[in-house]
Amino acid sequence: MTPPDSTPSSSDSSASGAGGERKRILTGVRPTGALHLGHYVGALENWIRLQREYECFFLIADYQVSDYADDFDRVRESVWEVALDWLAVGLDPNNSHYTIESLVPEHAELTTWLGWWTPLGMLERNPTLKSEMADLEARGSVPVAFFNYPLMQVANILMPKAHLVPVGDDQLPHIEMTREIARRFNRKFDREVFPEPDALVGRVARLVGTDGDAKMSKSRNNAIFLKDDEDTVNQKVRGMFTDPTRLRATDPGHVEGNPVFIYHDAFNPDTDEVNDLKERYVAGKVGDVEVKQKLAKAINAFLDPIRERRRYFESHPEEVRAALERGSTYSREVAQATMADVRDAMQTNYLAR
Amino acid sequence: MTPPDSTPSSSDSSASGAGGERKRILTGVRPTGALHLGHYVGALENWIRLQREYECFFLIADYQVSDYADDFDRVRESVWEVALDWLAVGLDPNNSHYTIESLVPEHAELTTWLGWWTPLGMLERNPTLKSEMADLEARGSVPVAFFNYPLMQVANILMPKAHLVPVGDDQLPHIEMTREIARRFNRKFDREVFPEPDALVGRVARLVGTDGDAKMSKSRNNAIFLKDDEDTVNQKVRGMFTDPTRLRATDPGHVEGNPVFIYHDAFNPDTDEVNDLKERYVAGKVGDVEVKQKLAKAINAFLDPIRERRRYFESHPEEVRAALERGSTYSREVAQATMADVRDAMQTNYLAR
Repeated sequence: MTPPDSTPSSSDSSASGAGGERKRILTGVRPTGALHLGHYVGALENWIRLQREYECFFLIADYQVSDYADDFDRVRESVWEVALDWLAVGLDPNNSHYTIESLVPEHAELTTWLGWWTPLGMLERNPTLKSEMADLEARGSVPVAFFNYPLMQVANILMPKAHLVPVGDDQLPHIEMTREIARRFNRKFDREVFPEPDALVGRVARLVGTDGDAKMSKSRNNAIFLKDDEDTVNQKVRGMFTDPTRLRATDPGHVEGNPVFIYHDAFNPDTDEVNDLKERYVAGKVGDVEVKQKLAKAINAFLDPIRERRRYFESHPEEVRAALERGSTYSREVAQATMADVRDAMQTNYLAR
Repeated sequence: MTPPDSTPSSSDSSASGAGGERKRILTGVRPTGALHLGHYVGALENWIRLQREYECFFLIADYQVSDYADDFDRVRESVWEVALDWLAVGLDPNNSHYTIESLVPEHAELTTWLGWWTPLGMLERNPTLKSEMADLEARGSVPVAFFNYPLMQVANILMPKAHLVPVGDDQLPHIEMTREIARRFNRKFDREVFPEPDALVGRVARLVGTDGDAKMSKSRNNAIFLKDDEDTVNQKVRGMFTDPTRLRATDPGHVEGNPVFIYHDAFNPDTDEVNDLKERYVAGKVGDVEVKQKLAKAINAFLDPIRERRRYFESHPEEVRAALERGSTYSREVAQATMADVRDAMQTNYLAR
């Protein structure tokens, strides 16, 4: 029995394993819950396309969720959920490398060495880290591991000697830090151990939540998950925020920034229907109910094949395990080769003396 | 050919390997140079005694010298120098475990996980770290790895599940931090993965430098090294500071706090001679020259067997390598067993699902 196919063209790509020809991409996600439509629009859609051309390392960064230290069950569960979602959307685990970060403990080893040539101020001045730490402090305390996570991300990228890292504009400083640390290490030991990765800047879309909030997230309870069933989607869409200035269906409404139309644009392939709805909405000639019913239908149609594949893998856990095992094992081999280069450059092969 | 024996009683101890009966001790040194008389009085003397009763893990902490990031040659060289000095003073590598920290990369792995349950404030408030960081900042910048080193020391201690850590009074807060982190981890995962180590508080003597400075150290150029030859020792002792208030040999002198007498007390086993010198010194009846000549003779007599053993091992690098290899390999096995316990407690054996 084979899973329902949703990646017909991935078999066109060269087989993984050797990976000598394709350029390498490193990207990943923190295991903090199942994936939602925001992840799809913001990342997965891109990855599905990129996996054909590049050798992709997809990382489940379980070392980097120390802000969930009090809810470790969730971390554990989420590793599996993320893998299921990736399989469901069609990331091919035989053509890319599903990697559980902690199954490649060389990440911790490389982070330690890189920390020698990373001034503390580089982390302290990181604006993203700063604001995340302020949030964490407000809720309790910041774990040491959290403070170190940006450096671990640098190690994640350098470990497979990734050429490219898909990012949005806002993450460019992070790639700059990676390049800087790679440069320092190479200069110090006078050889190019690490290529300086380039950012693959794309339009990284951010999907608003069902409540119109800037970010879809589990904690805000404004997310539609890739694994949500039809009824759940219908219910969530019914509860969506629309145009707050519009009180009656006969009032002229606003389409710009209106969550239901943002979602229509993202998930309803029937552009005629979407344009018709928009025109009637602006003219006050359609109610929220119809707009939402059509949206729910579109989202369900979009999710149906994903759900079907997810159901398949849920009932075939051995294939999920195999995907994680194959990818993590391969990534560990790559990591061990990189660490051999690192030790060679640093001449820390003390016993070879 | 066997090395000159200086540890006749170490063969009385039970063989290493199983290590099931003897309590475990973890201690170590940072590889920043060859060892000197200060190391001997402050640590080695104790270790030589402890190795008979305990299973000792002697760590060469090469992950923790990031303050020497600009002088990595020295780090590399010092790993070897430390091993030679240990062998020379009679730490038995077949009864204890000479461990190069980075050859057991599990130290980095455990540090990462422990960082989840260590609040940043615990490091930020560490008074020793604070003052060391201030010194480093004055000279340049603090590496991230340096900021993390106290947590790595916790990992060093917990890795072999050490029962005891030899410390001086001033290091008790460090052991308290280790106990606290062990407790947090055990509580979190509801099992005793890590025993809480006890401090083995001893009189940890600190030998003043030849210039009377509180600390003997290479950077202050006030150290007598265990590997110094006779001429070097004679010369260093000739240049030692004595009683600054005494201008002529006929002036009454002070013995208390006088470096030459501190050294006499530490290294001259002929107490009659030492008492005679002290009496005449106080009475203004002996010159610095005689006091120093007798001191140089005593130190050289103390160092002679150490030098002899060192020469042996310098011409038998394969035995040095074997000591480091056997110990590091054994320590890595111990580390892997501990990490298996850690993963088991955390249930991060994702693929076993």
